[in-house]
Amino acid sequence: MAKLSKDKAFLISLIRERKTLLTVGLDSDILKLPASLNQDVLAFNKAIIDATRDVCVSYKLNFAFYESMGLKGWEILEKTIQYIGDQHFIIADAKRGDIGNTSAMYARAVFDHLGCDAITVNPYMGSDSVKPFMRDGKWVILLAYTSNEGSHDFQKLGLEGGQKLYEQVMETTSTYGNDGNTMYVVGATHPEELAQIRNRYSEHFFLIPGIGAQGGDLDAVLKAGLNKDGGLLINASRSIIYASSGNDFAEKGREEAERMNAIIRKYL
Amino acid sequence: MAKLSKDKAFLISLIRERKTLLTVGLDSDILKLPASLNQDVLAFNKAIIDATRDVCVSYKLNFAFYESMGLKGWEILEKTIQYIGDQHFIIADAKRGDIGNTSAMYARAVFDHLGCDAITVNPYMGSDSVKPFMRDGKWVILLAYTSNEGSHDFQKLGLEGGQKLYEQVMETTSTYGNDGNTMYVVGATHPEELAQIRNRYSEHFFLIPGIGAQGGDLDAVLKAGLNKDGGLLINASRSIIYASSGNDFAEKGREEAERMNAIIRKYL
Repeated sequence: MAKLSKDKAFLISLIRERKTLLTVGLDSDILKLPASLNQDVLAFNKAIIDATRDVCVSYKLNFAFYESMGLKGWEILEKTIQYIGDQHFIIADAKRGDIGNTSAMYARAVFDHLGCDAITVNPYMGSDSVKPFMRDGKWVILLAYTSNEGSHDFQKLGLEGGQKLYEQVMETTSTYGNDGNTMYVVGATHPEELAQIRNRYSEHFFLIPGIGAQGGDLDAVLKAGLNKDGGLLINASRSIIYASSGNDFAEKGREEAERMNAIIRKYL
Repeated sequence: MAKLSKDKAFLISLIRERKTLLTVGLDSDILKLPASLNQDVLAFNKAIIDATRDVCVSYKLNFAFYESMGLKGWEILEKTIQYIGDQHFIIADAKRGDIGNTSAMYARAVFDHLGCDAITVNPYMGSDSVKPFMRDGKWVILLAYTSNEGSHDFQKLGLEGGQKLYEQVMETTSTYGNDGNTMYVVGATHPEELAQIRNRYSEHFFLIPGIGAQGGDLDAVLKAGLNKDGGLLINASRSIIYASSGNDFAEKGREEAERMNAIIRKYL
């Protein structure tokens, strides 16, 4: 189980050492594994991790894919996190958020029981739903302006004062914590807004989904979002873990990670 | 595992038979059980269910409390749902919501794997995050105006057009489905807004948290929210399951349920 406090200095040191901002998203779907693995998701994850350890700073576990397998999935989630160890930043992509006493239970699940370093949280329920996730050495990653098509439905609605909802969400929640315990999800599909957001929040880290299968452009994201520390965790899930459907899936996944890193290193 | 399609007619028939709108919230915290149970959460749940089967129409499982126990918790969740059986409406209070392909995986987890009838969903990510939960005989229960203090932070922000955010959320999401597959969470702590919401959405069911520990008033909720079918699922969690910390917890929990039902029957 990961024990170290993964504070901002640790994250920046990983970025400098490995010269990358890459987060590998383990959205491992039991129905999409190479046939030779006999639906062994843990073996799949271990192969991907072994192939990408030195070319990424972070792994992101999408909880839905594990919960869909029930008990067995929860066990694979635990073992995958143990296997990653303490030299990566581990993100629980769980999009939780509930009334105070319930959020505290989710924090217990994700931080104490599973040993993750960060959790994605939905801000809709406000302060008491978010603050229980703020702890020393742990991170809350709040949904701000997400990468999906539905992000237009509510997140970019205009408020009475002239701001967009996601801007107000960031302004309000940035007072709950600080850039040492709070990050924001900003979709790679919104590079213009990312530039504005970086302009306003110069020190915060942003988690960037939406590169690859969702169509986000890596060069545009880097131009818009980098700061002096890097300041971005750039996620790729399907484009890495399903880079090949054959027995060379791990090798091909590493190649895709290296292809992305070559672009990242042009800017970093 | 529950097999029946729990459609609107089924729910209304349960309400008429049992003359109640009560949902018992199984927020079962391993640290709060009577000492004699030796932290056996499943035994606790079974005792509460046995004591309340005929005085409620629904059980709501708060996933955080089970996830906080890891693998063991997931197993207790599965066994509790099996134990409830097919004569109650079973709500996964999981507050999920993610990009389309991920929400589809959560739907698989909660509906296919666990056999729940409904899931609470956070609307912040918009249409593609919500629609994968809409299926024949299954329900999505969208967060609209929640019971907690933080509900004031974003949900009641005024939009350019003059509506509050939660009003726009309801207006937009009500076009995704219909009153046979969509409910809304409206906190018992907002009875005035509940009356306005009922006025506008005459046919929808609302899930009402916030009675009891959070201070909502049952009479006020009933006056504001009832429709011809009942139209409300009134949740009580802590006030029922922790009605006593002694060995009479189940009996005292039933007494609290009956006390609430006496009030509900004045209006129903």
